[in-house]
Amino acid sequence: MPKLKLTYFAFDGGRGEPIRLALACGKIPFEDHRFPPSDWPTMKDQTPLHQVPVMEVDGKVITQSNTLLRYAGKLAGLYPNDPLEAAHCDEAMETIEDIVTKIVPTMFMQDEEEKRRAREALAAGPIPLYLRRLETMLKERGGKYFAGDRLSVADFKVFLWTRHLQSGQLDHIPKDIVQRLTPTLTEHFKRISAVPEIVDYYKKRAAA
Amino acid sequence: MPKLKLTYFAFDGGRGEPIRLALACGKIPFEDHRFPPSDWPTMKDQTPLHQVPVMEVDGKVITQSNTLLRYAGKLAGLYPNDPLEAAHCDEAMETIEDIVTKIVPTMFMQDEEEKRRAREALAAGPIPLYLRRLETMLKERGGKYFAGDRLSVADFKVFLWTRHLQSGQLDHIPKDIVQRLTPTLTEHFKRISAVPEIVDYYKKRAAA
Repeated sequence: MPKLKLTYFAFDGGRGEPIRLALACGKIPFEDHRFPPSDWPTMKDQTPLHQVPVMEVDGKVITQSNTLLRYAGKLAGLYPNDPLEAAHCDEAMETIEDIVTKIVPTMFMQDEEEKRRAREALAAGPIPLYLRRLETMLKERGGKYFAGDRLSVADFKVFLWTRHLQSGQLDHIPKDIVQRLTPTLTEHFKRISAVPEIVDYYKKRAAA
Repeated sequence: MPKLKLTYFAFDGGRGEPIRLALACGKIPFEDHRFPPSDWPTMKDQTPLHQVPVMEVDGKVITQSNTLLRYAGKLAGLYPNDPLEAAHCDEAMETIEDIVTKIVPTMFMQDEEEKRRAREALAAGPIPLYLRRLETMLKERGGKYFAGDRLSVADFKVFLWTRHLQSGQLDHIPKDIVQRLTPTLTEHFKRISAVPEIVDYYKKRAAA
């Protein structure tokens, strides 16, 4: 097994979290390098694309969060072998990345009024569109998991995004938007929350 | 082999082109559904995420351009089996998607002055950063191909992006930016341009 070091912000969310969760659930040893956001201004220029997460694999850097999640998924036995099932897994992962890329800029808006307008526009159009598409994908693929009728890294990525939407951390985006628009995604959220390895992981995190 | 239908704009570029090229080079039969950009306003709402490319696989729709490129690559024998080599392939594909997502909004700017400022900012910062990172990746992985020391869909995606940068279609981004900053990427561009299946493909396209 290669020596892995994952570098990401010191919080249990964002683009790094699905990778941590996949490696932890698959019992793949890795160095979980977490840094406080206050270190970011000095660290930023030292990362290849001024972004995190980055992973060192035997000392060599790899970037791009879905690249790292797919790689972690393969090591952890949480990524399908079948090309069409793998495409279903990828589609869910990339759909989340696509909508998150639209939401992230609002996190850096200093002007409260500008942020409110941007978030309300997202809650009125793109977020419902993406939630409904995810629900359709889930239903077409058996209703329980996003790929191959079993747990995969796609489920981790969707679960963590719907958790974020429900967390209340995103002002001006109604906390009940998932529950109200996409009941099958809400069921999916509950199903993945209850995966024993995930329950264990967050128990340990809470105690850390 | 599944029945494939790829829907994308009627031009030989953009997010659909690497998928067409991979399927054509791999001799994988597919329906190449091209539509004129003037049809887009009426078609847009009929696509799952108001985006193309989309692919139907035995009549079922899949979205997300890198998902489709990875799937096409597997069918065509142009995607690595080894997890680390696959991560190298994914990283190049996703790095291109990442920078293209920053460039695409400038294509819809109506205000020429706004477009000029946005393009000049990209040419001063992000585009050189991404080009140099791609060059570093290429060198670290043997200098010729982006993954597994052989041709993969990552090479197609990088080649088509550097072709676009050199095409002169992007006002305010110097046409010689690739050649000036990243000689190893320029060599890569020439190498991939000369792949016999790619030469054949564009001969046929020119005659079509």
